[in-house]
Amino acid sequence: MSSKYKALKQECYEANMELNALGLVIYTFGNVSAVDRENGVFAIKPSGVPYEVLKPEDMVVLDFDNNIIEGTMRPSSDTKTHAYLYKNWDDIGGIAHTHAMYSVSWAQSQLDIPIFGTTHADHLTTDIPCAPPMSDELIKGNYEHNTGIQILDCFNNKNLSHKEVEMVLIGNHGPFTWGKDAAKAVYNSKVLETVAQMAYLTLQINSNAPRLKDSLIKKHYERKHGKNSYYGQ
Amino acid sequence: MSSKYKALKQECYEANMELNALGLVIYTFGNVSAVDRENGVFAIKPSGVPYEVLKPEDMVVLDFDNNIIEGTMRPSSDTKTHAYLYKNWDDIGGIAHTHAMYSVSWAQSQLDIPIFGTTHADHLTTDIPCAPPMSDELIKGNYEHNTGIQILDCFNNKNLSHKEVEMVLIGNHGPFTWGKDAAKAVYNSKVLETVAQMAYLTLQINSNAPRLKDSLIKKHYERKHGKNSYYGQ
Amino acid sequence: MSSKYKALKQECYEANMELNALGLVIYTFGNVSAVDRENGVFAIKPSGVPYEVLKPEDMVVLDFDNNIIEGTMRPSSDTKTHAYLYKNWDDIGGIAHTHAMYSVSWAQSQLDIPIFGTTHADHLTTDIPCAPPMSDELIKGNYEHNTGIQILDCFNNKNLSHKEVEMVLIGNHGPFTWGKDAAKAVYNSKVLETVAQMAYLTLQINSNAPRLKDSLIKKHYERKHGKNSYYGQ
Amino acid sequence: MSSKYKALKQECYEANMELNALGLVIYTFGNVSAVDRENGVFAIKPSGVPYEVLKPEDMVVLDFDNNIIEGTMRPSSDTKTHAYLYKNWDDIGGIAHTHAMYSVSWAQSQLDIPIFGTTHADHLTTDIPCAPPMSDELIKGNYEHNTGIQILDCFNNKNLSHKEVEMVLIGNHGPFTWGKDAAKAVYNSKVLETVAQMAYLTLQINSNAPRLKDSLIKKHYERKHGKNSYYGQ
Repeated sequence: MSSKYKALKQECYEANMELNALGLVIYTFGNVSAVDRENGVFAIKPSGVPYEVLKPEDMVVLDFDNNIIEGTMRPSSDTKTHAYLYKNWDDIGGIAHTHAMYSVSWAQSQLDIPIFGTTHADHLTTDIPCAPPMSDELIKGNYEHNTGIQILDCFNNKNLSHKEVEMVLIGNHGPFTWGKDAAKAVYNSKVLETVAQMAYLTLQINSNAPRLKDSLIKKHYERKHGKNSYYGQ
Repeated sequence: MSSKYKALKQECYEANMELNALGLVIYTFGNVSAVDRENGVFAIKPSGVPYEVLKPEDMVVLDFDNNIIEGTMRPSSDTKTHAYLYKNWDDIGGIAHTHAMYSVSWAQSQLDIPIFGTTHADHLTTDIPCAPPMSDELIKGNYEHNTGIQILDCFNNKNLSHKEVEMVLIGNHGPFTWGKDAAKAVYNSKVLETVAQMAYLTLQINSNAPRLKDSLIKKHYERKHGKNSYYGQ
Repeated sequence: MSSKYKALKQECYEANMELNALGLVIYTFGNVSAVDRENGVFAIKPSGVPYEVLKPEDMVVLDFDNNIIEGTMRPSSDTKTHAYLYKNWDDIGGIAHTHAMYSVSWAQSQLDIPIFGTTHADHLTTDIPCAPPMSDELIKGNYEHNTGIQILDCFNNKNLSHKEVEMVLIGNHGPFTWGKDAAKAVYNSKVLETVAQMAYLTLQINSNAPRLKDSLIKKHYERKHGKNSYYGQ
Repeated sequence: MSSKYKALKQECYEANMELNALGLVIYTFGNVSAVDRENGVFAIKPSGVPYEVLKPEDMVVLDFDNNIIEGTMRPSSDTKTHAYLYKNWDDIGGIAHTHAMYSVSWAQSQLDIPIFGTTHADHLTTDIPCAPPMSDELIKGNYEHNTGIQILDCFNNKNLSHKEVEMVLIGNHGPFTWGKDAAKAVYNSKVLETVAQMAYLTLQINSNAPRLKDSLIKKHYERKHGKNSYYGQ
């Protein structure tokens, strides 16, 4: 049986497997999705399936209102958060959610990750935001959908652009990252985990460590992402 | 030579090997058992045998009064703790004991592990209990049997259900976990170790980190274990 | 097509791959160069190329004024720092730059790494210097060239010899290391990371840990590097 | 060419390779020796040779006065410490020295490792001693020989038995461990590193963590090493 979403499901599958290979998840934790903007659908990992037995054809395809378009398995329990982000941010191509150690620990501490160095500034120019836990009402309601709202509210309140800041921590829960495709979303999960560990160690060594100065933030971000960038090929 | 306990010993062997593969033990540390309720027996790892040379037929089969039913080797030195738990909790199918780094360190600190996030709440709704060290009298007596008593006393005093809370720390010693079968007991050992490390890091980042709010605890536990759960297939 | 720099590029390639194998970098982070003093050129990793797809022929050959002599790819964004060091220190043969976890965290803390033990003294007799972040003017100017200046200023101000101290931290950024060839530069990156982690842990255990006494510093350094050294073959 | 010490050199070689496989050393750090009491000699790793190229025939055989009996390479720079211990403790069969992360960090902190749990008590009943750094005079003198003296002085001052306590930290330097043979010495290095990390984490979680109570120390040590031990086969 062929599927018009075969390539999409393959991309989604490979990104999920990479999440596991990078050590960002154990067991059935975490999930990655990939979007097909032309058809208005995204593919996502099925819920509760261990990475070792996951197959490309297991990926579930849904539209942005969470209707299953293709697939026989139940999609990830976090699916509605993905759908909400795809619907509202029409320029992102993939989303990843992990339970990586340092990212989750910062989320549990309910603190933004301060920008301490150029590894951080190579990727974004602000602290990594930690969205506060939701109100009880929102938690008891359409929880995963509301998690998406919580992310957008956080970005609005902090005046952040999701095009530059491709990552967020959900207080007490963990990280969501996104990017131009699923592979970039997974890349951002790994970068976030690395930066989270570096910030943790920095504060253990020097609890008064200063934030990176503006000129250095700008220099490192611009040389990689500015219009006169000279990083990469 | 065939054995009526061949499948039981195989299950037990595989769970022990998984404990080692997950990095939760070194050398001969740790042990897993699996129960056969129909025959009123359990299989357990022999004492002091390195994982690299362990074989399925080495597993020792005992009844719940610690009589050896099958096997030529000496069973794990912690066997009586397993027997006591099987005898008193007739709905568990496997038990695991490790010397995993973060679990043991919390046990050595004699503190419960606070519930800080949803990774924790996906598995249980309370802090992970740390049973206090036993009285000198109990230690000098039937020590491993009394460790079982200590676990039950801890659950009674804290009004916990072993059906929901499938893990405990023994103060100064380390963790015991259990579940519907030996594989689930091992899974719980890995989850405990992960949650223990996250809680450790959370407190290092923010010594005033708040416990997870009740609505989030309930939401995450229920979506995975409640009657309207929507996690998994 | 043969190249007179084939051996140089091979040396450079192998040192870059070793950086990755040692776990000192992820993705496209980090870079190593190797010098050919006779021809007044050095080979360096191309910018933004993942280690998994890197090939010896991808290495870019430049002179010490940053003119590309051979190669079709854009060189590492940190190339000018390498060129400046080669031009000013005419006895070094290789340079490495990493984003290794503990080295970067010390750099982000803007503190020298104190000499606490013989593992450190086996390699150098002083604290590992952390150069302060540059002035805004220097950052906005010829940044990577100025990073080289910053390193030399740091060594002059602290009265250090680059022949003995083959490593430095750039405040808020990360480590640069060097040596008689590219392999030694990579070796020094690994030693720095190890010593950085040991110093971190030492201060966590005992915030008043004393620096290594002078007689021990001298003894360990001399037995490995002094004229009567008796370490090695 | 056959050698009467072939088996001894093989034992020594395998123990050194195990040190490396266990992640307790990098590059050329660390060394293990094995003794042949009948012939009054021991074999030890040659100095400064990477583990990847080490061969059994490279091991150097010496008597207890540091005369080379067989071998063409220079022995480990720590050889005299090994010789001194073999000469004074005539019931040990192997010695190991590592630069393992947590063991060295405790040594650099110049603190004994407190006995916090049963993982520790399964192996010894006291804190793990940290010998203070030597006087300047002893350091400038026959340093490695004097390190041996320092270890014995430490054991005498603290009234410890080397038969029970098979490990020591040398302040600012690192650990030495020993045992009935070279493999046991390496085992003890791994146990020490594990216990050192557990004690580190315990104090980070609870800076007032109590030492293990005497009855538990005795119980765990005796069940493994006492005359009525019931651990192992």
